[in-house]
Amino acid sequence: MIARLAIIGVGLIGGSFARALRAAGAVGEVIGCGRSVANLERALDLGVVDRFTTDPAEAVAGADLVFLAVPLGSTRGILEAVRGALDERAIVTDGGSVKGSVVADVRAAFGRMPPNFVPGHPIAGTEHSGVEASFPELYRHRRVILTPLAETDPQALALVQRLWEMCGAEVSLMEVDHHDEILAATSHLPHLLAFGLVDALARMRENDEIFRYAAGGFRDFTRIASSSPVMWRDICLANAPAVGAMLQRFASELNELADTIHDGDGERLWEIFSRAKAARDRFLADGGRD
Amino acid sequence: MIARLAIIGVGLIGGSFARALRAAGAVGEVIGCGRSVANLERALDLGVVDRFTTDPAEAVAGADLVFLAVPLGSTRGILEAVRGALDERAIVTDGGSVKGSVVADVRAAFGRMPPNFVPGHPIAGTEHSGVEASFPELYRHRRVILTPLAETDPQALALVQRLWEMCGAEVSLMEVDHHDEILAATSHLPHLLAFGLVDALARMRENDEIFRYAAGGFRDFTRIASSSPVMWRDICLANAPAVGAMLQRFASELNELADTIHDGDGERLWEIFSRAKAARDRFLADGGRD
Repeated sequence: MIARLAIIGVGLIGGSFARALRAAGAVGEVIGCGRSVANLERALDLGVVDRFTTDPAEAVAGADLVFLAVPLGSTRGILEAVRGALDERAIVTDGGSVKGSVVADVRAAFGRMPPNFVPGHPIAGTEHSGVEASFPELYRHRRVILTPLAETDPQALALVQRLWEMCGAEVSLMEVDHHDEILAATSHLPHLLAFGLVDALARMRENDEIFRYAAGGFRDFTRIASSSPVMWRDICLANAPAVGAMLQRFASELNELADTIHDGDGERLWEIFSRAKAARDRFLADGGRD
Repeated sequence: MIARLAIIGVGLIGGSFARALRAAGAVGEVIGCGRSVANLERALDLGVVDRFTTDPAEAVAGADLVFLAVPLGSTRGILEAVRGALDERAIVTDGGSVKGSVVADVRAAFGRMPPNFVPGHPIAGTEHSGVEASFPELYRHRRVILTPLAETDPQALALVQRLWEMCGAEVSLMEVDHHDEILAATSHLPHLLAFGLVDALARMRENDEIFRYAAGGFRDFTRIASSSPVMWRDICLANAPAVGAMLQRFASELNELADTIHDGDGERLWEIFSRAKAARDRFLADGGRD
């Protein structure tokens, strides 16, 4: 289906996309591009890509589909590097965790929203990075959100949707801003809480002891604090308004909870915890998974 | 070693203690006590106890060791129910997640701190409850903190320590207040963050959508929000000062993080996330586990 696929950023996300499409028999040649020659050589050794280059323009030459899987902060630069080299019919899609900033970068780099750019976000990942971490099943039974614009060509959209479905994912469509608000709540806030908790504990006086007695959920809770600091810095900066608002809202909730505890209001505490337990149990019953 | 063991509260904690000691050949007869006859009958069927009663005084009659594994809010009532029925040489220990409140309850019920009461806290558990959830390996490679007082008999302490070690646990000793502060940071705060997050998301307008797109760590993060609301209500009330202080401190951290994001300070964000990742990776390398 895709004679030539260019992956810009052959890490967990980009590498897994290439592997999944290869396994599905959906791609011919895969060209990898990134900044780390060592990672690209590994990608070649692993058969994730057929050849590689550190030059984005070279990578996209003649490509039918281009997948940008780079940190959000690098998106604008990559778009400017490739804009003159893309085939007219080439479809470009991405995997960025924030859509508003990517769309803004595309408009800035191209002077408009090209009909063949399909903004996307696979809601999947592990806390590991690099092509070594990639695997073809990453997207199976996961959700992918595409955020087409008014300008987006329906056939380009349909193709990208089909490709993600071939990776085993379930695709939904959403408005850009709505995506960013939802993800601020479901993903960005939890990650920031995990980072914040680990950081706060690491800076406490008794931090050796604290980490020695850290069990009872601490490991699970903070697994996501082992995620890439670069990726999360970029997500915070790219989704600053929504993320900032969620953080402040949650901080207020915590202060209210502190007051409830201070007041000794056992009834209210039980309500909050019961409601949370019920919501989570329902989430699991609906097949919710990581 | 223990001819007759009485377990008050035959749930995950109490049931697992009985199972572990039985497997280690350390106990003769096990008597179970609780409020739910159905749970006690199940405990009998499963062989976790040899007989049961809903009367705590009856349960402890002739017992060499008594293990209190009841919600913190029930501790005082149980102590008052058993104080007249305990053998003079009987050793009493508990599994409560907060030690200050338990010690206060003991002093109030007995008019003093009896030398044979050994306050304890096994740092172990799953989000499940009841004797069905119990298993003998729960405490293997886990930490147990004992908080002896000046009045505590060294031989009673040594016995309780040895029993926990026979369950496979590693035992440490700590001052009561210090225990409560450390646990506020390592356990109580993470649980409250998980409860708070799930509750906040459940109350948002778009909660259906939010839970549909909740992946990327959400499940792990919120696993502990499926814990017992009664247990956690009691922990908050029992450890109110330390927990309240941690919540307020963390709320300030979140507001600072929101400001950092608002200011677009990518450098600082990267520092926070990198420090957290390093701390967590170090925690894992030291063999930290859930």
